[in-house]
Amino acid sequence: MNIFEHIELTQLNPSTTERDIIDLCLEAKERQVYSICINSSYVALSKELLNNSKVKICSVVGFPFGNVDTKSKIHEAKTAIKNGAEEIDMVINLGLLKSKNYVSVLKDITDVKLAIEETPLKVILEVSELNKNEILKACQICMDAKADFIKTSTGFSKGGATLTAVKIIKKTIKGAIKICAFHGIDDEETAIKYFDTGVHRIGVTPDFKTSEVV
Amino acid sequence: MNIFEHIELTQLNPSTTERDIIDLCLEAKERQVYSICINSSYVALSKELLNNSKVKICSVVGFPFGNVDTKSKIHEAKTAIKNGAEEIDMVINLGLLKSKNYVSVLKDITDVKLAIEETPLKVILEVSELNKNEILKACQICMDAKADFIKTSTGFSKGGATLTAVKIIKKTIKGAIKICAFHGIDDEETAIKYFDTGVHRIGVTPDFKTSEVV
Repeated sequence: MNIFEHIELTQLNPSTTERDIIDLCLEAKERQVYSICINSSYVALSKELLNNSKVKICSVVGFPFGNVDTKSKIHEAKTAIKNGAEEIDMVINLGLLKSKNYVSVLKDITDVKLAIEETPLKVILEVSELNKNEILKACQICMDAKADFIKTSTGFSKGGATLTAVKIIKKTIKGAIKICAFHGIDDEETAIKYFDTGVHRIGVTPDFKTSEVV
Repeated sequence: MNIFEHIELTQLNPSTTERDIIDLCLEAKERQVYSICINSSYVALSKELLNNSKVKICSVVGFPFGNVDTKSKIHEAKTAIKNGAEEIDMVINLGLLKSKNYVSVLKDITDVKLAIEETPLKVILEVSELNKNEILKACQICMDAKADFIKTSTGFSKGGATLTAVKIIKKTIKGAIKICAFHGIDDEETAIKYFDTGVHRIGVTPDFKTSEVV
């Protein structure tokens, strides 16, 4: 297995410069990763830089808090796709989930998915903020909304992916949705542990350590 | 001086529930603050709750990272206004500022201001991420873009407002723009120190301590 075919090279820090995006795109092409994951204001630049490469662009939406109104999430997603994104990562509305307003959480995700049609949609749960029951509820909603992926974390909360969280998600979704594990997976050895649990995609930052000569 | 006429009661945590928004609006009406400051997905609910009160709604946009594309910031701002917001807080594109791409930073703010017309626009600089020269540049850009306020911080970075940062901003803008200090101002005594430096508005969280009987 060439793990890089399932790796999302991620650069989402608010102070990310144009130079950082150039470096990210160069590294993405060199390592032949599946995609880069970036903020929406850098999609157009990345599209130029990744021209003539197979690396896809994934744009985050409503990031990192998720409490942007649904219409604005849709607008950001559609603008990103127009600018070259081929995958969208939206953050679940955590506040509405915590309010147990499941109808609004479902509508938020459903409306984004309907709006972006065949473009794959990942929904970021921010598992470090959720208890087991909230993870179960969120997974059920993602299935109902026909999301393509559940992603564990934004990378900007108190914790990232854990094998425990991935196992809870996996048990709930029973293969109906793919899983993307993100944050805190810093080397190839750890990545393989996650792939072994059945994770389909892994997000890593540019300092990801690999045994492979690139 | 009744400081509450210049206070913005703020609740921006990603896990803010509907119950938290109810409490925020009740407190805002009781203390008769100038405004509440919230995420865009709670503007419509707050509008219902603040009906028949003088408390204004301020919605953040592109929050808290600022690296959302400009068109999506505009969409979020206009949607918030449509839902009842009377003031907009956008986060400056910190990555483009760090890239010294001042043209794009200016265009981002100018386009939002032009789109929301007479609605007051605050631009959040995130001063804890900036050196003195970057603060000066950002202030100049905010003046050029005809922003109405410069706000110090999002409350979600490594630091909030400082009197030093406010003094740098004040010296640069020479009264051309108002200043809003936010985060870390936890009691009335500290708030008065900020007002004494010439700050026009202060953002506080619901645990703000006051000597006044409310």
